Amino acid sequence: MTSRQDCIQMDEDDDLASLRSHFDLPEGLIYLDGNSLGARPRQAAARAREVVEQQWGTDLITSWNRAGWFDLPIKLGDKLAALIGAGPGEVVVTDSTSINLFKALSAALRIQASDPRSASRKVIVTERSNFPTDVYIAQGLTEWLDRGYHVRLVDTPEELDAAVDRETAVVMLTHVNYRSGRLLDMNALTAHAHRRGALMIWDLAHSAGAVPVDMAAADADFAVGCTYKYLNGGPGAPAFIWVAPRHLSRFSHPLSGWWGHARPFAMESGFERSDTIRSALCGTQPIVSLALVEAGLDVFALTDMAALRRKSLALTDLFIDLVESRCGAHPVTLITPRAHEHRGSHVSFEHPHGYAVVRALIERDVIGDYREPHIMRFGFTPLYIRFVDVWDAVDRLAAILDAEAFEAGIEPDAVT
Amino acid sequence: MTSRQDCIQMDEDDDLASLRSHFDLPEGLIYLDGNSLGARPRQAAARAREVVEQQWGTDLITSWNRAGWFDLPIKLGDKLAALIGAGPGEVVVTDSTSINLFKALSAALRIQASDPRSASRKVIVTERSNFPTDVYIAQGLTEWLDRGYHVRLVDTPEELDAAVDRETAVVMLTHVNYRSGRLLDMNALTAHAHRRGALMIWDLAHSAGAVPVDMAAADADFAVGCTYKYLNGGPGAPAFIWVAPRHLSRFSHPLSGWWGHARPFAMESGFERSDTIRSALCGTQPIVSLALVEAGLDVFALTDMAALRRKSLALTDLFIDLVESRCGAHPVTLITPRAHEHRGSHVSFEHPHGYAVVRALIERDVIGDYREPHIMRFGFTPLYIRFVDVWDAVDRLAAILDAEAFEAGIEPDAVT
Repeated sequence: MTSRQDCIQMDEDDDLASLRSHFDLPEGLIYLDGNSLGARPRQAAARAREVVEQQWGTDLITSWNRAGWFDLPIKLGDKLAALIGAGPGEVVVTDSTSINLFKALSAALRIQASDPRSASRKVIVTERSNFPTDVYIAQGLTEWLDRGYHVRLVDTPEELDAAVDRETAVVMLTHVNYRSGRLLDMNALTAHAHRRGALMIWDLAHSAGAVPVDMAAADADFAVGCTYKYLNGGPGAPAFIWVAPRHLSRFSHPLSGWWGHARPFAMESGFERSDTIRSALCGTQPIVSLALVEAGLDVFALTDMAALRRKSLALTDLFIDLVESRCGAHPVTLITPRAHEHRGSHVSFEHPHGYAVVRALIERDVIGDYREPHIMRFGFTPLYIRFVDVWDAVDRLAAILDAEAFEAGIEPDAVT
Repeated sequence: MTSRQDCIQMDEDDDLASLRSHFDLPEGLIYLDGNSLGARPRQAAARAREVVEQQWGTDLITSWNRAGWFDLPIKLGDKLAALIGAGPGEVVVTDSTSINLFKALSAALRIQASDPRSASRKVIVTERSNFPTDVYIAQGLTEWLDRGYHVRLVDTPEELDAAVDRETAVVMLTHVNYRSGRLLDMNALTAHAHRRGALMIWDLAHSAGAVPVDMAAADADFAVGCTYKYLNGGPGAPAFIWVAPRHLSRFSHPLSGWWGHARPFAMESGFERSDTIRSALCGTQPIVSLALVEAGLDVFALTDMAALRRKSLALTDLFIDLVESRCGAHPVTLITPRAHEHRGSHVSFEHPHGYAVVRALIERDVIGDYREPHIMRFGFTPLYIRFVDVWDAVDRLAAILDAEAFEAGIEPDAVT
């Protein structure tokens, strides 16, 4: 079995080990929740001071031009594009993932409705286990459009083959499932959707910055995602949206705010959509939060997604091996796929007292999180998690499970 | 004529003068653009460090509960409510003004459509001179709903009497016009809309924190507004939305994200709208920008809107008097109403070379702004603008206009 000393050696041999120095992590804390809120890049504190104290406090209104505030969604979008296999002018960082999904879904439905060959397609297909807001947004849009659209939920990805049919307008999937950590085959599912005449929207919330993503190779239509998980952009930082270049000239959605106008400062009384990626913008953006996204993106310039993926898989392999070998006597069940090609960068185990176990881990300075029902979730951000962290986390988990209390059945008193 | 010494005396006699010490304003700068981007409250820098360094950097994911991030939109909404005559649980700070207007307008149209007596009403009435994004949002929503709704634009507020008729579903107005600074009579116009059977939405972008606002007294239905102008919440800080208590249980809009769910952490696959003000929320919010809003709101606890209004009118009266007496030989035309009851907290003058004049003022450390066509706009935030600032600003304006260059016709080379 792998020893703690083996893990220390793995860290010494790790080419990416120095990337951890670009993050400010609290001493002694093992942070396995970067899949929910990424740790703070070292640059972020200085960047926040620059934006708040200099740009806002001293330069005031002139910063909209001089500090490039107005173009930040585009500038950050171009930086982020490289991480998801997109080109410049195809991505903006703006609004929330929910709102960006609303835009993408609206645009996709309109594209389908405007073509006589696809106008009768009224179904949006997604997974029941998708992150709830994705499903809610589709429900909200279809209900309001009130033109016969509806949402078809599948219980497993395997059902997608049959569920995507000639009634399907759009397939909308999350690349890595937020609970199970299952990674879907983006290229195959996109090709399948297209073969059946549907458009394909990907939610990259749990994959951008965590696994290699290549929107161009997948030939998908739209993607959205968040910047505050593996991209380390800060709490609730604005999300992103990618529009395939072939759709840019017709990217149309109901949130027609002034930042999406072809000439926003001409103050015209009629909306004229920009024919660039600016059409995915709506209103004025929260500049301080937006600016911090850059500190997170800049760390990725020091490495590449292939190297990060190798380390991510090594970390999750190690975690699964250690939990199963050291905690196998307890009712701990892996729900994340073992096969690398089906695994993202977080690992989930089911345990009947999962909530209490996660609370006990947090008290021992191991931060994971809990998702209903019974899921203990642990994220492994390869930018800053060490192999020895994995060993220490499992060591504490084993100690907790070996203690009597959890067998006695402590129940959750709240939801994290 | 008022002398500089008179202005110094007015500042000495000003009960609100000490409020300026709660802002960090650059030495020597006369900042007359708080109507576009409010100055930075002194507390904001420390607050940004706390959120970025401590809450994000050290406490990480636990801050969602421990630091109250998840409830910030509600907590800030309750603080803001007092400034607009609303009660607790009626306001949230979230998303952008454009997106909040989309929610309010959607909800208003649905309320009208759900009542057989008003279901045939298909018109949204607003001003052509409203801030463009308001008009664009109405255009976007009506076009997408595609149920015969359309937007009726009036050229002057006087036309509203006739334009609001039995076809009108919603009247949507901005309380203080962004160009002219004209203040509308909220109570009378709301009563007029209601008498004609329409619902009333107010955009308070240029009035919240600048003029007394009393949503309860006006008996309006919905309001939206921004926090980065007179509320000094920081660049692009999240906006707010108010829902009249009588509409809370049926406040429904298409942006049904997980933060608006009755049980967001239950992770259910069906959307069930919260019956509280949380139904106006959609997705995860940009916490750093959001948290800074509090620093701006806290300054208002030191005074009240009636006192601020008295000072605001004294400042704008003085500015108008001085410009007209000292610059009267030049083609400078007041477009802001002289009557107090029709004036907000900014003053606009037309000048054929307005853009060049504003640029020249900026070079002399007087920050105003320019809006097409020909409008020089000057905002007077009573929290931090002094009477002597008004005198000095006009002194420099007079010097610029007295110089030959602007009579020779310098044309704008860009739009600010």
